[in-house]
Amino acid sequence: MEYFPPALEALVEQFARLPGVGKKSAQRLAFFVLGLPDEDASAFSDAILSAKKSIKMCPVCCNFTEGEGLCPICASSKRDEGVVCVVADPKDAAALERSREYRGRYHVLHGVISPMNHIGPDALHIKELIDRVADGDIREVIMATNPTTEGEATAMYLSRLVKPFGVTVTRLAYGVPVGGQLEFADDATLTRALEGRQEM
Amino acid sequence: MEYFPPALEALVEQFARLPGVGKKSAQRLAFFVLGLPDEDASAFSDAILSAKKSIKMCPVCCNFTEGEGLCPICASSKRDEGVVCVVADPKDAAALERSREYRGRYHVLHGVISPMNHIGPDALHIKELIDRVADGDIREVIMATNPTTEGEATAMYLSRLVKPFGVTVTRLAYGVPVGGQLEFADDATLTRALEGRQEM
Repeated sequence: MEYFPPALEALVEQFARLPGVGKKSAQRLAFFVLGLPDEDASAFSDAILSAKKSIKMCPVCCNFTEGEGLCPICASSKRDEGVVCVVADPKDAAALERSREYRGRYHVLHGVISPMNHIGPDALHIKELIDRVADGDIREVIMATNPTTEGEATAMYLSRLVKPFGVTVTRLAYGVPVGGQLEFADDATLTRALEGRQEM
Repeated sequence: MEYFPPALEALVEQFARLPGVGKKSAQRLAFFVLGLPDEDASAFSDAILSAKKSIKMCPVCCNFTEGEGLCPICASSKRDEGVVCVVADPKDAAALERSREYRGRYHVLHGVISPMNHIGPDALHIKELIDRVADGDIREVIMATNPTTEGEATAMYLSRLVKPFGVTVTRLAYGVPVGGQLEFADDATLTRALEGRQEM
């Protein structure tokens, strides 16, 4: 039985489908939206439709981009096309961009290999990566999947696939995070940080 | 600087405006919506517009209702119109309905008096309650605002306003929650539970 009017129940249900949003939170969000001025609620509704409509995948790097054609990074002549950084998710590419350090290009897998979740290599954009490497313009592939078991396994798997094309394959450095505190670092991280120590 | 395409950034911003949703969660939600099938994303977008368009306030009890006119509870001849339960929020009315115990009607204040948040009596639907009581058909008003400082203060304030009309004013009982554990009950609750003890 429903205790709210049907249109409100429907909105609650839509919010409850979002990841990490329970029934109570969904109610709170639905009530918030009901309380918005009409134009703000319309803007929210429109943002969903327009993102859904205009956000496509770049045919080269598989990152999200607006409209058809290459994404701004693949289209830019200022980015080194000889270096490709492989990430699991567009969010990871965005994080690397924020560092303003990287001047190469990206390849977005849209996931990692995860047998537990029935995600095999075919579910990821690996074929597009192989095509790029096979084209021959790429010197280095940087594996920048997360330093988790699945991220590592995916990096290992891809490494074996692309090495035969004669490219250098590198992995992001492990170590203590900048601004972090040694006492809170886990053993595995400290071990890797010691192994990777560099002369000052 | 933006690191996602503008339409995606716009969607992230819309989600980030929701209460309790930070920047990171907003990104997660926006990516989830992007990953939905087209028809599901449209359904989400439509649910916002249609809830916003069709959900109105019942002119009598101020609860949310679909379309113009009385809400189902105010329109029902099966509900005792002589008893009105005053709640702060439509969610509270829904919670009481779920108990299937209450057969009277409601009055929804849409908030409580909260000087800290600059919410005075004029911001609540108190005038509508007074009008109902003044009409003379109401025997009892049950104050069911939350057992918080602000809820108590609001109940006290309303009690003084409606008593002169000769209605009985009651307050929900305080005590230990059913299924709860005594050892975790706070002092104030235990004190009220002892004071309100009843013969078995």
